[in-house]
Amino acid sequence: MFELEGNQEELLEKIEEYIARKRYADLRALLLPMEAADIAALCGELDEKVALVFRLLPKEQAAEVFVELDSDQQELLIQSFSNTELKEVLDELYLDDTVDIVEEMPANVVKRILKHSDPEMRKSINEILKYPDDSTGSIMTTEFVDLRETMTVEDALKRIRRTGPDKETINVCYVIDDGRHLIGLLSIRTLLLAEDDDVIGDIMERNFISVQTLDDQETTARALGKYDFLALPVVDTENRLVGIVTVDDAIDVLQEEATEDIEKMAAILPSDKPYLKTSPLETWKARTPWLLVLMLSATFTGIILTHFESALASCAILTSFIPMLSGTGGNSGTQASTAVIRALSLGEVRFSDLIRVLWKEFRVSVCCGLCLAAANFVKMMLVDRWLLHNPTVTPTVALVVCATLIGTVMVAKLVGCSLPILAEKVGFDPAVMASPFISTIVDSLSLLIYFQFASMILGV
Amino acid sequence: MFELEGNQEELLEKIEEYIARKRYADLRALLLPMEAADIAALCGELDEKVALVFRLLPKEQAAEVFVELDSDQQELLIQSFSNTELKEVLDELYLDDTVDIVEEMPANVVKRILKHSDPEMRKSINEILKYPDDSTGSIMTTEFVDLRETMTVEDALKRIRRTGPDKETINVCYVIDDGRHLIGLLSIRTLLLAEDDDVIGDIMERNFISVQTLDDQETTARALGKYDFLALPVVDTENRLVGIVTVDDAIDVLQEEATEDIEKMAAILPSDKPYLKTSPLETWKARTPWLLVLMLSATFTGIILTHFESALASCAILTSFIPMLSGTGGNSGTQASTAVIRALSLGEVRFSDLIRVLWKEFRVSVCCGLCLAAANFVKMMLVDRWLLHNPTVTPTVALVVCATLIGTVMVAKLVGCSLPILAEKVGFDPAVMASPFISTIVDSLSLLIYFQFASMILGV
Repeated sequence: MFELEGNQEELLEKIEEYIARKRYADLRALLLPMEAADIAALCGELDEKVALVFRLLPKEQAAEVFVELDSDQQELLIQSFSNTELKEVLDELYLDDTVDIVEEMPANVVKRILKHSDPEMRKSINEILKYPDDSTGSIMTTEFVDLRETMTVEDALKRIRRTGPDKETINVCYVIDDGRHLIGLLSIRTLLLAEDDDVIGDIMERNFISVQTLDDQETTARALGKYDFLALPVVDTENRLVGIVTVDDAIDVLQEEATEDIEKMAAILPSDKPYLKTSPLETWKARTPWLLVLMLSATFTGIILTHFESALASCAILTSFIPMLSGTGGNSGTQASTAVIRALSLGEVRFSDLIRVLWKEFRVSVCCGLCLAAANFVKMMLVDRWLLHNPTVTPTVALVVCATLIGTVMVAKLVGCSLPILAEKVGFDPAVMASPFISTIVDSLSLLIYFQFASMILGV
Repeated sequence: MFELEGNQEELLEKIEEYIARKRYADLRALLLPMEAADIAALCGELDEKVALVFRLLPKEQAAEVFVELDSDQQELLIQSFSNTELKEVLDELYLDDTVDIVEEMPANVVKRILKHSDPEMRKSINEILKYPDDSTGSIMTTEFVDLRETMTVEDALKRIRRTGPDKETINVCYVIDDGRHLIGLLSIRTLLLAEDDDVIGDIMERNFISVQTLDDQETTARALGKYDFLALPVVDTENRLVGIVTVDDAIDVLQEEATEDIEKMAAILPSDKPYLKTSPLETWKARTPWLLVLMLSATFTGIILTHFESALASCAILTSFIPMLSGTGGNSGTQASTAVIRALSLGEVRFSDLIRVLWKEFRVSVCCGLCLAAANFVKMMLVDRWLLHNPTVTPTVALVVCATLIGTVMVAKLVGCSLPILAEKVGFDPAVMASPFISTIVDSLSLLIYFQFASMILGV
């Protein structure tokens, strides 16, 4: 046993020293007790020495490490493999992992992989590859245990013992009829706790949830989380069982989708590579489009400001509160939109809740607005007027700023909470309606409110 | 079998009709094939009729539904239970679910629950309740299968058959010595594929990952995801096995932590209740503190603007570009900080990567800055000067604005990427260094850069 998050740098030094001094037996002894994911993380720093480390490991562990490597390193390794080595690794891999790898490889490597897979594997890989990205079919595996209704528990256990080693999971088994239609499922626990001569059809669960190959992978992953399942059966349009999705893949999907949502909320085009693995050029490409759109849409605020140039000139102090007003408006809107986007994504809020959401945000915004306005009035009188000796900050000016604050916070919260819901309703991604987008809209609105109050109260 | 996300409103109408007409047999037939999580979601809309629905369900299903209910409804139900009913439900619950429920109940309800739990359960509940919130101990369960090294596979399977029904999972079994120290583990698959007279000590896995009761629950949940485990053993400081954390609880933790991160990034104090379940007052309390802090810190931008009042008066058109500049700066900073915060949270970036991150963001910011500046120059000449007939938008003014854009984007990206890393280093939560905080800092910096360029190029 060893600790999580061991000291990676120390380990890396040790490995490099062992390699330099050709102490391969020591290196092997160091790696053997480690988890595959941890070895793969170390390999990320080893460059071309990966092949050496890889060949030191027992076949099964080597395959597990292989699955966890970056696609660049996988490609490097495959290029360095002899045909026999490649076949050995492929034999150890689970189908869904092989598919993941194939999807990332260039055409010539894919050809080589398919050539050295056994025919059944090749057929399954091609089968899964034809499902669209982000579909449930693309993350499923076809390696599951299937049973028949008429089997006894003893038959079933025999079948599991015979076919189990090649299956991704045996914790849930699937019962199909002669047409491969899914008719029930049962857990290994039910099997073990039953009597040897019980019949599968009598003890299996006939009420179950299944998903379809073309369902969104995020929906499937959320269902696994919601119902606390270890795997979900995947059927085609005629309810024939074609695969299963296991909980480990669901976790990966949920993490990726959370990252994607967060990126979209920050006006970044989502990417599926880790931060340090993307080149500056890729990062630039992901970030510039939204920056450009938002920059150009700020033209409106510029036009509004130009329009009120004379008002600003007659009461110059008004200018100095613009950043505070637009900042507070942006932040208020961000809070509302973020809360609603997350709630939409977790399925807590739907379009039919729009009125409830608006009513809630209305009440919140009145409280927030009043509270901020009061604090701001005190601050303007104490700090700006008294402490900084600025006589142009009169109580009337403070009144204009505070009234604008209340108006801006209310508008920001109402716009912020409703836009994501409306976006989802018309089929757009609500995450795009987050912080930067809302801020840009609220910027213009807050200026219009500001000048409205200024002309009403100050007569500028 | 039935569909995911069935039409909830239709179902709800049907249920209410059945209740109104006292067609309880039909209601029961409708609910029986449904998943507990789905029934619980429907119960959320049924108010005090929940108790009726609840009593129609078979004991086991009723308990499963009970676990999935909101704590308000759980409390309501417990209050309405007779002592016998309460005992029946408690007997069906897994330990970790009971603990979750107890944590949310008021003292008098807790007392009643503890009184009607059997003594062993009561001891375990008290045991788990003493671990701090967010610790691994607080989410673990003590219901696991423990085996001894000297058992044969046959003995082990017998033990699982005998004790299995009460365990949360039998998919992984844990091998302990006489001092209850964890010495190995093995999966049910290994057990099933082994020969009856194999000895556990020979076939168990001796290299394994374990976590400690006081480890952060998020670290534990991430480990489960990273290593694709179904459960992780939890040991005390002396390596004695005290519980396990299962993958379903890990998914919940990961989802909650993602929500918390997203909330913090939007300057909201995190809450663990769903959006529509929090009262406006609670939402107000969660949102006002950061709004206040950020509003007051915008005082600095106000001071800077006041300081350059005369410069602005001599070249009024400069004012109209301030919102665009601070918006673009804020957005650029948000992109960098969000990307880095997520990478930190997924463990892809550490403090030692600071230089690499800075160098990457530097190159990205140069590309972004040049690109935005070019687009903005064209836009100012074509739209502002030519289309909107504004003669004060001269090429020189455009030059000042574009130079500021480049400077602001660079500063924003560098501040945005480094602050979260530095915050984590000194023990703060990096998520707080997100969008609103960065925007407020960048606002001031962009104004300083703007006036610097204005005085250099325009001599104002």
